[in-house]
Amino acid sequence: METDDLLKQVNFIKEIDKLKYIQRRTKLFNSDRNENDAEHSWHLAMMTIVLAQHSDKPIDVLKVLKMVLIHDLVEIDAGDTFIYDTVKNHTNSEEELIAAKRIFGLLPEDQAEEFIAIWQEFEEGITDDAKFAKAMDRFEPLLQNTSNNGGTWKEFNVPYQKVYDKKKAIGDGSTKIWEYAVKLINESVEKGILKK
Amino acid sequence: METDDLLKQVNFIKEIDKLKYIQRRTKLFNSDRNENDAEHSWHLAMMTIVLAQHSDKPIDVLKVLKMVLIHDLVEIDAGDTFIYDTVKNHTNSEEELIAAKRIFGLLPEDQAEEFIAIWQEFEEGITDDAKFAKAMDRFEPLLQNTSNNGGTWKEFNVPYQKVYDKKKAIGDGSTKIWEYAVKLINESVEKGILKK
Repeated sequence: METDDLLKQVNFIKEIDKLKYIQRRTKLFNSDRNENDAEHSWHLAMMTIVLAQHSDKPIDVLKVLKMVLIHDLVEIDAGDTFIYDTVKNHTNSEEELIAAKRIFGLLPEDQAEEFIAIWQEFEEGITDDAKFAKAMDRFEPLLQNTSNNGGTWKEFNVPYQKVYDKKKAIGDGSTKIWEYAVKLINESVEKGILKK
Repeated sequence: METDDLLKQVNFIKEIDKLKYIQRRTKLFNSDRNENDAEHSWHLAMMTIVLAQHSDKPIDVLKVLKMVLIHDLVEIDAGDTFIYDTVKNHTNSEEELIAAKRIFGLLPEDQAEEFIAIWQEFEEGITDDAKFAKAMDRFEPLLQNTSNNGGTWKEFNVPYQKVYDKKKAIGDGSTKIWEYAVKLINESVEKGILKK
């Protein structure tokens, strides 16, 4: 039984290697090289342990780490949806749920259930843990775009208001980080790398 | 003061982006594309949350996650040392300590101290948490090399005994995973992708 578990877990570990091939629109810091989902997930995990003190509410750091580490795994099947996409909605789609069931379903049953629940909690974004995890997910590309002279904002002609509306979720997790984010957004307008 | 903290933390978050450019010798699963340190660290974090139940001793999963997430950051300055390198020793070198002090030193003082201590605990490999973290670090490339028809073992002509000796550290963290690893190593000899 325990050996069965290990074999299932190893299959899962091999399968999720595919996350390293999923390209995001955003580029690495001061770079023109696209970031992939595994790198992005690692960076969010680092941000979580470094910035946890700024959460408005007490959070379970281990839970938040699990969230950010697994949050994009469904993209192995469903692909990355650009946050400013005007056609495809970046919500918990049917396609993503099927992906979650297939990918987490490779694990032993109790683990599969735990991971699907954590992924859904992140997607719903209602709990304090999920709000902080989502704040990290919004903050990283903001830092990247400001370091890349506008990055995807410029590339895809995304206006100030759309950026502001999407980034507002940072404030649901941390007032402190949101204040800093607003400063960065306003500076971007002043610098002409984000158009108002 | 708190704002000072956030600015330091953001500087650190930007600096560690460089981990994504540090290439390892090992390749992704069933692939000829080199893995980078950020992808590797993410994968070890995933393995930690998935395989924690197999640790021989009780572990602090959050601590182990911090270890595997940060364990290679010193390579931003010191570079990756190949585990089977015959010239340069893969130990906690003076160069790595200087790197740890510079990189973690970007953080607020208390965090810098915490991270340096966690990194040193990992490097020393004495505590149960460090042993499990090191088991993950040895297990991932074993899975990669067996999926890549020998991978770096074949490429760099590494013999069975050297592989066995290096991988033995897996058993210090988990008897269960080590038994499975030995099976994989023996199968690799039978298949002719590792020479005895």
